[in-house]
Amino acid sequence: MANEIPLIELYRARQRIRGLVRQTPLEHSPSLSALLGAPVYLKLESQQATGSFKLRGASNAIAQLDDAQKARGVVAASTGNHGRALAHAARALGVPASICLSRLVPANKVEAIRALGAEVRIVGDSQDDAQAEAERIAREQGAALLPPFDHPQVIAGQGTLGLEILEQLPQVRQVLVPLSGGGLFGGVALALKTADPSIRLHGISMARGAAMAASLEAGHPVEVEELPTLADSLGGGIGLDNRYTFELARAYCDELHLLDENAIAAGIRHAYREERQVVEGAAAVGIAALLEGRIAAEGPVVVVVSGRNIAIEQHQRIIEEDLHG
Amino acid sequence: MANEIPLIELYRARQRIRGLVRQTPLEHSPSLSALLGAPVYLKLESQQATGSFKLRGASNAIAQLDDAQKARGVVAASTGNHGRALAHAARALGVPASICLSRLVPANKVEAIRALGAEVRIVGDSQDDAQAEAERIAREQGAALLPPFDHPQVIAGQGTLGLEILEQLPQVRQVLVPLSGGGLFGGVALALKTADPSIRLHGISMARGAAMAASLEAGHPVEVEELPTLADSLGGGIGLDNRYTFELARAYCDELHLLDENAIAAGIRHAYREERQVVEGAAAVGIAALLEGRIAAEGPVVVVVSGRNIAIEQHQRIIEEDLHG
Repeated sequence: MANEIPLIELYRARQRIRGLVRQTPLEHSPSLSALLGAPVYLKLESQQATGSFKLRGASNAIAQLDDAQKARGVVAASTGNHGRALAHAARALGVPASICLSRLVPANKVEAIRALGAEVRIVGDSQDDAQAEAERIAREQGAALLPPFDHPQVIAGQGTLGLEILEQLPQVRQVLVPLSGGGLFGGVALALKTADPSIRLHGISMARGAAMAASLEAGHPVEVEELPTLADSLGGGIGLDNRYTFELARAYCDELHLLDENAIAAGIRHAYREERQVVEGAAAVGIAALLEGRIAAEGPVVVVVSGRNIAIEQHQRIIEEDLHG
Repeated sequence: MANEIPLIELYRARQRIRGLVRQTPLEHSPSLSALLGAPVYLKLESQQATGSFKLRGASNAIAQLDDAQKARGVVAASTGNHGRALAHAARALGVPASICLSRLVPANKVEAIRALGAEVRIVGDSQDDAQAEAERIAREQGAALLPPFDHPQVIAGQGTLGLEILEQLPQVRQVLVPLSGGGLFGGVALALKTADPSIRLHGISMARGAAMAASLEAGHPVEVEELPTLADSLGGGIGLDNRYTFELARAYCDELHLLDENAIAAGIRHAYREERQVVEGAAAVGIAALLEGRIAAEGPVVVVVSGRNIAIEQHQRIIEEDLHG
């Protein structure tokens, strides 16, 4: 085992978050299946409560705190979806939450977090600045710092999505997963690779500022410049002191794909037109990789569609582009 | 991995047998928990359709045959429960079945198999004689020979019981499993040990004629004399050419317990009086091991109660014994 988290932790997470998190549908995609020449299914985590997979890890991380820790509250830095999920889970479990964000986080995400009753702090121009603020609050107020990805309970929570894939389609041969900090990728890969090491795992990210990809290439965690991208949820560093997700990605990522902004936009458009799904850029990268012809025609393929939290004006601009361009 | 069957095969089996097999209850036992000083749960596979876990493996083995093989039918040798389960699954799937039994098999089990529409052949005084007859039928009629335990699809089917334990009680620390040919033990152990190697697996059998125990001690499959026992379902050899279950038991059995007939009878009585469950001898060995003080007080403990197919006159005799003795 290339990691320190045994599969049973995913089952424990699942039991813990039952009632807080939805089992999301796995839906056959006729258009992508025809394109690939092999069956393609979409794991529609965009239909998760709070609009992204992040609710799984956040719920699990909060649910396993003891009562004293719950009373002191939780704090996190987040590019948006983790903060929103944490705020949602914290409210469901009656725990106070503070969320620290950088100025790069889209306004729609900030508002969604405020609406969930969390205290929002906007600081600095990077995920690292937001992280420093979260650490300060944890230190000074005794709140539990729940990192967005590099935490065993967060990874185990995201891994429950992998358990669902195993149950919904145990014939699966390839899985396409958005790759950023590696919590989703690591958890899903842990479930699938433990069950069958021959299942092929694809990590997919944007070409602009993909910290995990740069780290894998360097052989150790490295920093990259954060740049605006349609896949904003995939932004942010992996932490130079990364403890879990880098090793999980290194052990389990069979293929890595980096996509340009046009490809990601095409993925968003395809999800909208062919699947009637509104998805954010980070969630469209699997579809985009298929459209770009990056994936071999060995099925069944599962594409993890990780979230839907896109600013709706941006979505509308993207889906109209093709008509005018 | 100490074996050739990846965990994903258990998920595939589960999908295949959905609708043919029940998810059985996991029930807390106040009496055994008080006795042990740690939480004890009974996995009541005695409530499975056909009255034993064997339906899982039999259903999976038949369901994965192709249409031509299904038309030619299936054949098996069986101490009873496998034959009954195979007959049941074959009827559900519209496949002809022949079941070969030795004269040691209790009459109630023979009748149950006939009632399910299978052709029954009674030959010889041992499981080996019945096996030879089954092989002859497979050869001459082209029927698919489905062995009772040493077959990947049978093991994967029984392993679905292990997946249910993982879901129902992911906190489990010890599991007590009846050990005979090793299909049930191997499948359940595969699920649990893959998820968490630190879960303690106990294989439990009767002292009289336990072939797997003798084989584990010898370091290779050996034959033992078959003797009448209350745990008749645990009788029979493991096959000198054993391919899967011996290695699974060797890899995953942390503790082996052999019980005398009085202990097994006490297990049957306890199940009846304290749990209101009618169980056969083979299914009572886990409870019996707890009553005998063989198990350390580290919980939660899951006891696999594997079947209820006991001749009712024998059951009545056993539960009355204590009153008169």
